[in-house]
Amino acid sequence: MEMQIPALNESQLSERLAALKEKYNGYKALGLKLDMSRGKPGADQLEITNELIAPELLGDFKASNGFDVRNYGILDGIPECKSLFAEILGVPADNVIVFGNASLTIMYDYIAQCMLFGAGAEPWSKQDGIKFLCPVPGYDRHFAILEHFGIEMINVPTDENGPDMDMIEELIKDEKVKGVICVPMYSNPSGITFSDETVRRFAALKPAAKDFRVIWDNAYCVHHIGTPDTLLNIFDVCKEFGTEDNFIEVTSTSKISFPGAGVAALAASDNNIKAIKSRMTIQTIGYDKINQLRHAKYFRNKAGIDAHMLRHAEILKPKFDAVLSAFDNNLAGKGIASWTVPNGGYFISLDVYNGCAMKTVQLCKEAGVTLTGAGATFPYGKDPDDKNIRIAPTFPSRDELCKAVEILCICVEIAAIEKILEK
Amino acid sequence: MEMQIPALNESQLSERLAALKEKYNGYKALGLKLDMSRGKPGADQLEITNELIAPELLGDFKASNGFDVRNYGILDGIPECKSLFAEILGVPADNVIVFGNASLTIMYDYIAQCMLFGAGAEPWSKQDGIKFLCPVPGYDRHFAILEHFGIEMINVPTDENGPDMDMIEELIKDEKVKGVICVPMYSNPSGITFSDETVRRFAALKPAAKDFRVIWDNAYCVHHIGTPDTLLNIFDVCKEFGTEDNFIEVTSTSKISFPGAGVAALAASDNNIKAIKSRMTIQTIGYDKINQLRHAKYFRNKAGIDAHMLRHAEILKPKFDAVLSAFDNNLAGKGIASWTVPNGGYFISLDVYNGCAMKTVQLCKEAGVTLTGAGATFPYGKDPDDKNIRIAPTFPSRDELCKAVEILCICVEIAAIEKILEK
Repeated sequence: MEMQIPALNESQLSERLAALKEKYNGYKALGLKLDMSRGKPGADQLEITNELIAPELLGDFKASNGFDVRNYGILDGIPECKSLFAEILGVPADNVIVFGNASLTIMYDYIAQCMLFGAGAEPWSKQDGIKFLCPVPGYDRHFAILEHFGIEMINVPTDENGPDMDMIEELIKDEKVKGVICVPMYSNPSGITFSDETVRRFAALKPAAKDFRVIWDNAYCVHHIGTPDTLLNIFDVCKEFGTEDNFIEVTSTSKISFPGAGVAALAASDNNIKAIKSRMTIQTIGYDKINQLRHAKYFRNKAGIDAHMLRHAEILKPKFDAVLSAFDNNLAGKGIASWTVPNGGYFISLDVYNGCAMKTVQLCKEAGVTLTGAGATFPYGKDPDDKNIRIAPTFPSRDELCKAVEILCICVEIAAIEKILEK
Repeated sequence: MEMQIPALNESQLSERLAALKEKYNGYKALGLKLDMSRGKPGADQLEITNELIAPELLGDFKASNGFDVRNYGILDGIPECKSLFAEILGVPADNVIVFGNASLTIMYDYIAQCMLFGAGAEPWSKQDGIKFLCPVPGYDRHFAILEHFGIEMINVPTDENGPDMDMIEELIKDEKVKGVICVPMYSNPSGITFSDETVRRFAALKPAAKDFRVIWDNAYCVHHIGTPDTLLNIFDVCKEFGTEDNFIEVTSTSKISFPGAGVAALAASDNNIKAIKSRMTIQTIGYDKINQLRHAKYFRNKAGIDAHMLRHAEILKPKFDAVLSAFDNNLAGKGIASWTVPNGGYFISLDVYNGCAMKTVQLCKEAGVTLTGAGATFPYGKDPDDKNIRIAPTFPSRDELCKAVEILCICVEIAAIEKILEK
């Protein structure tokens, strides 16, 4: 039978702490080196896409329009690769641009463009005190981009339906608020998917700023693990409200084929595609079309992608299950932690006892378990409650993972008890 | 025996013009479609690097440091690819960053960084009226980047030793002059290589601006056709003057392996490498390391690159020779045109009779021969003498090229005679 830790008296807590510390020191003595810090695919996942490099896929190096992919040209991607992403994102191919290997770079470059040239109004860099809304917990690399450009970030709490839309609807009355950055499906790190109502309310937003942009980072749109969530197609819903220009959607094959050697794409309105191409035509002659052709030939269509993602899920599900069952066995009912149970994506979001995330991560580190830094899931690295930890179960082997999570659970409890005893 | 066209009398000119127009109309009637507009490798050149896609090159996907190139990580390039570019450029590997497929993007992104974050001083976007010096004739895509960012461009004439260094030394006394953009070897379009003295004077520059940068686009550093020119290593010479921070050097394998599917790199001082990495760490997790490994394994070292470039030269030399001998046969000694005879690179620079470049290009176009637009080799597309035409002999087959150049020579003469008759 589980006990609520915060309800124990001092001597019970001390006794329990002593026992936990003994276990902890035992692990510490093993000199482990386990890494659950980043959302990297595991070695086994990398193997399943090896056929992507087969020369046969490239044939005579001709794209479907007859263009030789080895030579210069085709700014916005070869037709079959545009079609592939168009099908995945549910938009016309004309509203897709295929880039290089990273959607992060697409987002960085787009925001840099808004800073220098604006989004249909004054350059953002010439408007003082501009702000972005950041659903939290969120993706640290998103926040790093905004901080880099000196854009003020405002936390917006998230629940199982997505960000607090009442708050967003209120905040966008400020014309200094230029946008929102978010992961609408299998969000990093919570794993939640925005509800239909949330997506509708996003599409319906009528911000004061004329140059408002939502960066809709649909990184995990096909990355199911359990029973798939569904996400409304933002561009379908936008049509009802005439707000297509407010949204810049990105995705990539980084966690479909190879991280760092995949293909990334953007979907946007006609106006935004035009503005982005006007920059691209100066920035590049074109991206790597050989790699685009490889991907288009290997996956063929969304059905091909979905079949491939089932193979990833086969590898990932036991890892997610291992974390979740360790949490269930070691933390459930104790009143010191809660966590999400995602149906896809790359992360589990763990909320530990208030004020204990940094301590927990530190304890883990000393025992050889590297976690994403506490606070990383919040703008400026500052978690106001110091409670959220992003769990990335994909990279370690299942055995390593089981050991790491067991240590993590001990650390969560030690940190909580020490916190309670301080009071 | 050749005659000086400008020395002919009106009736001689008219007679000659009538004969040329008859020839011209004969070609026009053929409905040709020939393209000498861009510096694209020809189909035959693309074939010689096909083994680059062989899976055997990738082996177990491990870089020399044991890192799996299929996964995330390694911001600045795998060690063996950094070493390859370090050897090509003659700099330590620590001063090299390997990027994605395009040096154009490296230059664009670097200037964007200077605009938003400065080059060790106020952001360029916050300093009014900044300027760049542009050796002319030069590369249209360089000028497009500067124009895009609203940087004023000042023409600096070039001769066979490089740009007019007296003029550059004078102009950099203005602290609004923030840099120079140039191709120091086998320059686009003139094919000239900066003399040792020119390079020394570049290295010795002591500009008024504290945030001065020379974009040293060494695109053609191994792209010899005839007897190789030699270029002093800018970073070797800089050491004498302590001016390493003034130079950003870029290059790529676009015209070594595949245009658009190659690997690009940058060499810079410790300070500049640090500043650039601080941006990159926000912009990307890393570039395509699989393609980096392919290139490193296929070429191995500079000797491997040089051997490969001989094969390109075998294909290119007859094309350059065809153009040059047509010019010799049809234009030499007529007093209406002059041209460069490059030992490498991708272009020949043709100067036609003053005020006749646009007309010549237009006449060619009407006869089915597409040339780079007149004026393209100057900032803002404005050739003050309307005389320079960039000849790109690489893309057409040799037969097509011979026909195209013959038509070009006719057009050069027609335009010149019409101009003279106008007077």
